[in-house]
Amino acid sequence: MHYGADYYPEHWPEERWEEDARLMQAAGLNVVRMAEFAWTRMEPSEGAFNFGWLDRAIALLGRHGIRTVLGTPTAAPPAWIMAAHPDATLIREDGRPVTYGSRRNYCPNNADYRRHSARIVTAMAEHYSGNPLVIGWQIDNEFGGRCYCPVCQAAFQRWLQDRYGSLEALNAAWGTEFWSHIYSAWEQIPLPWAATGTHNPSLALNYRRFMSDSYVDYQRAQIDILRQICKDVPITHNMMGFGYPNLNYFDLARDLDWVSWDNYPRLRGEPDPAARALAHATMRGLKGKPFWVMEEQAGPTGGSTVALTPRPGEIPYWAWQAVAHGADGIVYFRWRTARFGAEEYWHGILDHHGIPGRRYDEVRSMGEVLERMGDRLDGSRVSASVAMVLSYDSRFAFQNQSHNPHLDYPRVFASLYRALWKRNIGVDIVPCVAELGRYRIVLAPMLYLLDADTAERFRSYVAQGGTLVMTCRSGVMDMDNVVVDTRLPGLLSALFGIEVEEYDSLEDGRAVAIKGVGPLQGPRGEGSAWADVLALQQAESLACYEGEYYASRPAITASRVGKGRAVYLGTLPDEALADAFLTALGARPEFSSLVRADSGLEVVERTADHASYLFLLNGTGDEKRADVGAGGHEWITDREVAGEMVVPPLGVRIVESPRG
Amino acid sequence: MHYGADYYPEHWPEERWEEDARLMQAAGLNVVRMAEFAWTRMEPSEGAFNFGWLDRAIALLGRHGIRTVLGTPTAAPPAWIMAAHPDATLIREDGRPVTYGSRRNYCPNNADYRRHSARIVTAMAEHYSGNPLVIGWQIDNEFGGRCYCPVCQAAFQRWLQDRYGSLEALNAAWGTEFWSHIYSAWEQIPLPWAATGTHNPSLALNYRRFMSDSYVDYQRAQIDILRQICKDVPITHNMMGFGYPNLNYFDLARDLDWVSWDNYPRLRGEPDPAARALAHATMRGLKGKPFWVMEEQAGPTGGSTVALTPRPGEIPYWAWQAVAHGADGIVYFRWRTARFGAEEYWHGILDHHGIPGRRYDEVRSMGEVLERMGDRLDGSRVSASVAMVLSYDSRFAFQNQSHNPHLDYPRVFASLYRALWKRNIGVDIVPCVAELGRYRIVLAPMLYLLDADTAERFRSYVAQGGTLVMTCRSGVMDMDNVVVDTRLPGLLSALFGIEVEEYDSLEDGRAVAIKGVGPLQGPRGEGSAWADVLALQQAESLACYEGEYYASRPAITASRVGKGRAVYLGTLPDEALADAFLTALGARPEFSSLVRADSGLEVVERTADHASYLFLLNGTGDEKRADVGAGGHEWITDREVAGEMVVPPLGVRIVESPRG
Amino acid sequence: MHYGADYYPEHWPEERWEEDARLMQAAGLNVVRMAEFAWTRMEPSEGAFNFGWLDRAIALLGRHGIRTVLGTPTAAPPAWIMAAHPDATLIREDGRPVTYGSRRNYCPNNADYRRHSARIVTAMAEHYSGNPLVIGWQIDNEFGGRCYCPVCQAAFQRWLQDRYGSLEALNAAWGTEFWSHIYSAWEQIPLPWAATGTHNPSLALNYRRFMSDSYVDYQRAQIDILRQICKDVPITHNMMGFGYPNLNYFDLARDLDWVSWDNYPRLRGEPDPAARALAHATMRGLKGKPFWVMEEQAGPTGGSTVALTPRPGEIPYWAWQAVAHGADGIVYFRWRTARFGAEEYWHGILDHHGIPGRRYDEVRSMGEVLERMGDRLDGSRVSASVAMVLSYDSRFAFQNQSHNPHLDYPRVFASLYRALWKRNIGVDIVPCVAELGRYRIVLAPMLYLLDADTAERFRSYVAQGGTLVMTCRSGVMDMDNVVVDTRLPGLLSALFGIEVEEYDSLEDGRAVAIKGVGPLQGPRGEGSAWADVLALQQAESLACYEGEYYASRPAITASRVGKGRAVYLGTLPDEALADAFLTALGARPEFSSLVRADSGLEVVERTADHASYLFLLNGTGDEKRADVGAGGHEWITDREVAGEMVVPPLGVRIVESPRG
Repeated sequence: MHYGADYYPEHWPEERWEEDARLMQAAGLNVVRMAEFAWTRMEPSEGAFNFGWLDRAIALLGRHGIRTVLGTPTAAPPAWIMAAHPDATLIREDGRPVTYGSRRNYCPNNADYRRHSARIVTAMAEHYSGNPLVIGWQIDNEFGGRCYCPVCQAAFQRWLQDRYGSLEALNAAWGTEFWSHIYSAWEQIPLPWAATGTHNPSLALNYRRFMSDSYVDYQRAQIDILRQICKDVPITHNMMGFGYPNLNYFDLARDLDWVSWDNYPRLRGEPDPAARALAHATMRGLKGKPFWVMEEQAGPTGGSTVALTPRPGEIPYWAWQAVAHGADGIVYFRWRTARFGAEEYWHGILDHHGIPGRRYDEVRSMGEVLERMGDRLDGSRVSASVAMVLSYDSRFAFQNQSHNPHLDYPRVFASLYRALWKRNIGVDIVPCVAELGRYRIVLAPMLYLLDADTAERFRSYVAQGGTLVMTCRSGVMDMDNVVVDTRLPGLLSALFGIEVEEYDSLEDGRAVAIKGVGPLQGPRGEGSAWADVLALQQAESLACYEGEYYASRPAITASRVGKGRAVYLGTLPDEALADAFLTALGARPEFSSLVRADSGLEVVERTADHASYLFLLNGTGDEKRADVGAGGHEWITDREVAGEMVVPPLGVRIVESPRG
Repeated sequence: MHYGADYYPEHWPEERWEEDARLMQAAGLNVVRMAEFAWTRMEPSEGAFNFGWLDRAIALLGRHGIRTVLGTPTAAPPAWIMAAHPDATLIREDGRPVTYGSRRNYCPNNADYRRHSARIVTAMAEHYSGNPLVIGWQIDNEFGGRCYCPVCQAAFQRWLQDRYGSLEALNAAWGTEFWSHIYSAWEQIPLPWAATGTHNPSLALNYRRFMSDSYVDYQRAQIDILRQICKDVPITHNMMGFGYPNLNYFDLARDLDWVSWDNYPRLRGEPDPAARALAHATMRGLKGKPFWVMEEQAGPTGGSTVALTPRPGEIPYWAWQAVAHGADGIVYFRWRTARFGAEEYWHGILDHHGIPGRRYDEVRSMGEVLERMGDRLDGSRVSASVAMVLSYDSRFAFQNQSHNPHLDYPRVFASLYRALWKRNIGVDIVPCVAELGRYRIVLAPMLYLLDADTAERFRSYVAQGGTLVMTCRSGVMDMDNVVVDTRLPGLLSALFGIEVEEYDSLEDGRAVAIKGVGPLQGPRGEGSAWADVLALQQAESLACYEGEYYASRPAITASRVGKGRAVYLGTLPDEALADAFLTALGARPEFSSLVRADSGLEVVERTADHASYLFLLNGTGDEKRADVGAGGHEWITDREVAGEMVVPPLGVRIVESPRG
Repeated sequence: MHYGADYYPEHWPEERWEEDARLMQAAGLNVVRMAEFAWTRMEPSEGAFNFGWLDRAIALLGRHGIRTVLGTPTAAPPAWIMAAHPDATLIREDGRPVTYGSRRNYCPNNADYRRHSARIVTAMAEHYSGNPLVIGWQIDNEFGGRCYCPVCQAAFQRWLQDRYGSLEALNAAWGTEFWSHIYSAWEQIPLPWAATGTHNPSLALNYRRFMSDSYVDYQRAQIDILRQICKDVPITHNMMGFGYPNLNYFDLARDLDWVSWDNYPRLRGEPDPAARALAHATMRGLKGKPFWVMEEQAGPTGGSTVALTPRPGEIPYWAWQAVAHGADGIVYFRWRTARFGAEEYWHGILDHHGIPGRRYDEVRSMGEVLERMGDRLDGSRVSASVAMVLSYDSRFAFQNQSHNPHLDYPRVFASLYRALWKRNIGVDIVPCVAELGRYRIVLAPMLYLLDADTAERFRSYVAQGGTLVMTCRSGVMDMDNVVVDTRLPGLLSALFGIEVEEYDSLEDGRAVAIKGVGPLQGPRGEGSAWADVLALQQAESLACYEGEYYASRPAITASRVGKGRAVYLGTLPDEALADAFLTALGARPEFSSLVRADSGLEVVERTADHASYLFLLNGTGDEKRADVGAGGHEWITDREVAGEMVVPPLGVRIVESPRG
C-alpha cells in the first residue's frame, strides 16, 4: 500500500525539506508525487535543464524511506513558451483565449507545444532513468478542456477524413441534407461554437470524440517517450472520477499502466459517500485493476472561494473508503498549503505555517494502521456481482441534446448506482465491450448509441442466464448519432419484447405516477424525466403508469430470453420504486461474513486468496451496528471481533476473515 | 381550404415517396411546402443546378392531388457559399459570429450573399414558372436576427443619411448634445453593441428600424424576381406570430400576397389559447386578410431539449382554432420526423420510423371534416368590433428602455387582449395608420411614440363616436424617440382631458391599490408596473389610487369629446379591474346565434355572405355548454343542433347558420 | 454653504436660460456645475474651440447670483476623437471593446487620448482663468472602469518594473513558482482576463492597484495643467461613495483640493440611511475635511429602467443628512430632465417639460432654511470618537478571492458601521496610515493585507489606551498578497494574545451559534461567513462557539496591552451580538445637548468653535421623539426648543447650542 503526499519542494526554502521529510516519515508516508508543476524550474529557458534541486529532494526523501512519482509538467506551460507561441493557447467554446495566468491553457494539437512537451519529457526521462527512488510517472495533470482553435479545426477535419474516408460517406452518415449543410470540401467543416446554436448531432458528437482522442494522442506521445527510455517504470495519469464529462476515460486509461484520480469530497456542499463510491468504482473499472487516489483531500479546498474545512475524522474516513473500493495508493494533496498562487487556499495536510496540527494527526493515525497491516491487502480485489455499462459516446451525445434538464446521463447513471450502493451491492463499472458473463445483473442505463455487436453481446448475455436492465433512450441512435429508422428501442426491441409507441419528455420536473403489477405488485412510485409508452410483444408488464394519457400502459417490462431476463424501464423510477424493483430482481449483497448491518452503514469487501477484508464505513453522524458473524481480526482497533459490533460516526472497521 | 404538411423528400429514399404521398392523400392533405432548406441539393456548386429530384417529387405528389408551395432556400446557406464569403456571416450583439453549423447565419445586407440569393431564386423561378402544381412561393424562412457586422454598420449609416439628409438634422433630432455624441461624419455613427451599455434611444430605435428594413428589403429583392418571372403565383413568408420582437411585420407583410406563420403551442410550458388567439389575430391583421399556418405543430418540439408531447386531441383542436381565427390554410410541420440534424427531435406527423400512429390519425380525422365542409368557409371573415393598435416603433423603443421589468410592451398588450378574449369579443390587430371608423372600441396601449397625424386620427375617431382606450406611457416620444417637451400624454392631453403631474415606476413587483368610482363604482383592484399621477382638465375619474403618496388621485379617467369617449389608464389594471372596466365600457361579443356560453369556452365567428360559422372551442379539461339558439348544421359531428349543446374537453364544434 | 444644481445649458434653447436662472435663484440656488459633458460643443474639431455659449451661460447665471464649477469634459470623448483613435477604446475584462455610444469608453493610459485631454483642459483653463464666476473645477466625471487593452498591458509591465526593479524580485514576491509561472521577460506578464480563471493573487491585486493608479495619474495630468494656469481655483472630482470598488479613493483624493461625490439614495430598492451615512463618512474621511455632494438625487433615476420616484420630503431629507455628515455643498442632479440621450429618465428637479412642480418646491424649501442659517455651519466639523480603518488593498485582494460569497469586504465593513450608526456614534473612516490617537475605539475589519508599520502603529495605539477591534481574515497577507508563514493573525498575534488554530469557511449561508461569556455574558447569537478557531495565549474569551466541531472554543477574545484593549472577532457576529458587544466595549454617542432619542432617529452633530448643531433626522415612517435638554434655536421650524420634541416622518430638525 502506497501512502503519501503531493509535495512541492520548489515552494519552500531548501533548509525546510529535511523537516518535511521527517514529519512525513513520522506520519507513515512512503511516497510523494513531485514536479508536475515545475516546468520552468526544470527548464528556465529552452534546453537549459536544471534538475539539481529535484535530485536533492528525491534523494533527501529517499533517505527517509519515501519514494517518488514524477509528474511530467505539461499541464502548466512556462511563460517563455506561451509568449513564443501565442497560437498554442487554448480557445474556449465562446471564442475567448485562455490567456496566460492559469493552467491547462494549451491546445493539445499544437505542434509547437507538442515539440516542447516532447523535449521536457525526454530530458526528465533521460535524467531519471534508472533512479530506483523514482517508482512511477504521472503524465501531465487532470487532462481536459476542449479547444476551438484553428489548429484543432484542421486536425478535426483530418480526423474526420480518417474516420469517414470521403465527404460522400460523411454527408450520408451525418444527414447533412438537413438545413443543406452538405460539405463539398473538408475545410468547410466547422467547429461547434457556442454562439451558433444547436449543431448537427453527428458533428457535435464527433467533435467531442475528437477532442477526447486529442488528449489520448497527446498523452500517448509522452508515454511512448517514457516507455522507451525508462522501460519498466509504470505510468499513470490523475483523472477526475466519474464526474468529469469531457474525456473518454476508457480510452485514456488504455495506454496507462495504472489509473489514479483526484478525490475531493468537500469541493462544494455536503460530501456524498455514494458519489465517491461510484467514482472509485469507475476508476477501478477503467482497467479492471486497483487504482490510486493521487490527490486525496487533506484540508479545505479553495480557489477564489474556500470550502468548509474537513470535519474531524473525515480525512481518514475518506481515505479508507477509497481503499475499501480498491485503492492501493493514497496520496494526499498537498503536503503543505502553498503561500502563493491561485491555489493558496487549496489546503494541504499542513497549513501555510507548516506546523503539524489536527489534520496531520489524522493522517498519521491512518498511517499507523497501514503500517500495522503491512502488505495484507496486496492482491485483494473488490467483489462485485453487478455491472453497470458506462458509455462515453452516449454521454457525449446527451451533452449536445440533453432532451430535458432532468434526463441527465450521469445523474440517471448515478441514481441507479445509488440504489445498488444503499444495499451494499458490489458494482463494477464497465465499458460496452466488456465481458459480462461473470455478473448476475447488468445495468446499461440510457445506452443512447448502440451498435449491432453490443446488441448481440447483450442478447447472448441474457440467453446464457444474465439479467439485463436497460432504460428509455436506449438503442435510439446509430454510432453516427443518427436516429434509427425502426421503432425503439431499435436493435433491442426483440430482446426486450417491446416497442415504444410514443414517448413523452417530462419537462419542468413533471412526474407520472406508477404502480407495480405482477411480480412487482405493491409499490407505488413516480417516474420522471421521460416516459416511453410501451407496446408488449413478448414481455410482461412489471409496472404501469397511473397518470397522463397513457395511464394503465406498461412502464416497466420484463421478457424472458433463453435462461435470462431482459428488463426495461420506460421511465426513470424514484428511489422507493427503484429499491422495490431491485428486490424483485433479487439484487443482494454477497459478503463472506456479514450477517446484518444497520441501514446507512457502507460495507465493501476486498477479497484476496488468503483472506477477505470487510470494510465497515460509517459516513453518518450516528452510531451504526453490524453483526459480522464469526468475524476475525479488526485492524483499526487491532483486536478480534465477532457478532455485533458498533461503528462510531465517521468510524471505519476492517474485519479480516480467513478464506478457503 | 388548404390542408397539408411541410415535406422534405430530400431526407428520404426516393422509393419511399410514393408511400408518403399515399398516406398524405388518405389523410386529406392537398398541399405541401418543399425546398426551403434544400439549396445545396438544388445547387451543389455555383450555377450547377439540380432540380430533377424536386421535379419528380412535385409531379408524384401532384398525382395524389397534392400541390406545392415552394420555399426559396436562403435561410440556410450552403457551406460552399459561406466558406467563400466568411464576411457574409451574421455577427451577434455580443460580437460573436454565427459561424457555420446552424441557419439564419447570413447578413441580410451582404452584397455577395444577396447575389447568390438572387441567382438561386432566379433559377427556381425560371425552372418552375408555369408549373401548375406550384401554387405559391414562400420567401426564405422565419426572417429575423439582428446583425452587427461592418457591412451592416455602413448600410445603417447610409440608411440614416437617406432618412435625415444631413448630420445637422440627425444631431438635432437625436439630441447628440447629450454626452457630447455629436457626429461630424457619417462613419462615426456606431452600432449599439451590447458591451457598450445604454445607448442613445434615438440611435437604438433607428438601428432596430434599420435591421427590420434590411429584411424587408432583402425579401423584396426576392419578391421582385419571382413576380417578374412567375407573375401571378402568390407569395408569402412564414412569420412568427405576435411574439417575435425584431421585425416590423406590417412592413414585412406589405410586399407579400398573403401572410403565413408558424404555430407551436407546445414550445415550452402549458399551451395558452389566448396567446395563440392574439397571434392569429395579429397575423390576420397584417394584411386584414385570411392567412395560413405554414407550420402547425404536429408532434413534440425539440432541439437540444424536447418538449411535452401533444396530448390526444390537441393537434386538431389547435388547427381548428387557427381556422376559427381566419386561417385558410393549415400546413403541419413536418410530415415525418427527420432522423438527423439539429431538429431531429422536432417531431412531425409521423415519427422517425415512418409508421402512422396516433398523431396521423388525428390529422386525418380533421381532414375528413374539411373534405365534408368543402369550400364553405371560402370568403368568410372573422367578425370584430374592437381593434387594438400595435406599434412596432413603440415596441422597439421599449426594447432599449424597458422602464421596468413589469412594463413589458407585448405583455401589457397581451393582457388587455386577454381580457377581451375571455369575453369572446372579436378583436382586430391594426397598425397606427389603420382606418378605425368601423370599430366600436379601439385600444392603443403604451403608444409610446406618437406623431401628429395619428393623434389627429384618434381625435377624429372619438369625435365621431368611437371609444378610445389608451394607457400610461403613451404620447411620450416623438418619432425620433425623444421625449416631448409638454406635459404628458403630450399630443393626447387635450383629447383625454388630463395632464400627468408625476409618474412612479413601480419596480420590483410593487402594486398600488385602486378603487373604482363613479360609473366604475364597485370593484377594487391593483395597478402595477407604472402609475401616472393625473390632473383632471376636462375628464372625470373612473378610478382612483388608494395607496402611495398619490392616494385619492385619479388612476383611470374618461373624457367625452364629440360623440365619443377617450379613456385613459394611468396604471396597468389587474385582471378583475380590467374586466370590470370593459363591462363599464360596454364591450361585449356580437354573435349571430350564440345565446350563452360557459366561461372558458372560446367562441369565434367567421361570417360569409351566405352564412356564419360559429366556432366553439373547448381548450379546457372539462365539458363546456353553450346555448346556440336556433343553431344550424354542426360540421364536426355532422348533424343539426339547436339550443344547449355540450363541447367535450379539447373538442370543437362548428355551427353554420344561414344569413341574410 | 453651496446649494445648486448640475446644469446643461447646451441641452436647451438659449432663450430658456433666463427662465432657468430665475427659477434657480428663486429656489435659493447659488452654484451650478457645467460643461463636464460638453467637449464636442466646446471643441467641434481639433483645436477649433467654441466657448461663447458657455461664457454667456456663466455670465447670465452670475447675474442671478449663481457661480459656476466647471467640469473638464473628458469622461465623454467626442466621436471625432474616438474615430481617429480606435485603439483608445477601453477593453473590458471579457475582451469586448466599449465601442462608441456611451461614456467612460476611453483607456486612461492611451497617449493619444491623454494628448487630446491635455489640449481641451489647457484651452478651458486659459479661457476661464481669472473669471471670478468660476469658483472651482471638477476633473472628468466618476472615474473608474478597468481597461484590458494592449497599451494598459504594456503600462502595467512598466509599472511593475518600477515597483519591483527586477523580475527576480517580482518572481520571488509573487510566488510564481506556483504553476511554473516564473517570468523571464517583462513582456510575458499577462493581464488577469476573465476567461483565464483564477489568477495569481499577487498579479490580480497589483493589476487592480495599477488601474487605480492609472486614473490617479490621468487625473493628476489634468490637475497639473489647471493648477499652473488657474492657480488658486480649487479642484475636485465627483466620486461614487463607499460603494465604488475599483479605485483607491484615498489616492485619488490626495491630489484634490476637496472631495465631492454623487448621492443617489433611490438607485434601486428602498433607500438605506446607514449606507448613505457610511458613504458620507467615507467621503469626509478621504481628506478629513468637509465635502460636497456634487450630484444629489432630485428625481427618479433611470437608464434603461426607471426607479421609484422620490417620495414627498425625501429630497430635502437626503440633502440635510449629507449636510449633517459634513457636506458643505449640495448640488442637485440635474436641473432639468434631459429630453434625449441615454439618461433621459435620470430625472432632475424639473421634469422634461420644464414646469416647476413638487420636487422644485421641496428644493426651494430647503433653500429657504439655508438662506436663513447664513454662514453658521461654516467651519463646523462632524464629531467622531470612533474610527474605522478602510483598506483598498484588502478590498482589491478580496475581489480576486472572495473566500465565500458571505465574506464580502464592503458588506462586513458596512455591517459593523451600521451597528455604530444605530447607536448614533460618530465614526470617521480613515486609511491605514491615519493617526489614531484621538479615537476612543478603532475598528479595522478584515484587514487582510498588513505591513509591519501598521501593525506597530496599532500596537502603539492600544498601548496608549485605545480600544482596537479587528476580525478574522486580518494580518493574513503581506503587501504582495502572499500568505504569511506564521500562525494567524500573523503580525497581530501578540497584540491580540491569540493564535488561529484552524478556520472554517461557512459557505452557503451556514451559521454557527455563539454565546457571550465573562464580560459579555448574556447574549446569544450567530456567527456567519467565517469562523476562526482560536487558541488563547494572552487573552480572555468574550464569547465562545456553541456549534460545529469547535463548540466551546473562543469566538471573540480580548487582550489587555498597556493601557488599552485589543479585541478580536473570530467570526462575523449578527446584529444583536454586535450590539451587545459594542455595549460591552462602552461605545456610546457623545453629544453636547442630546438627552435621549427614540430608536430609529438618526442624530449627528456638527461642531464649530461658537456652537454645535444637533441634526435630528427621521428617515422612518413614524414620528420620533427626542429630548434635547437645554436645547436652543431650531432652524427648520425657526423657533427655540428645549426638552422633548417631535420629529415627523422624513422630518429634519437642527438644534443650535452655544459652546464654550
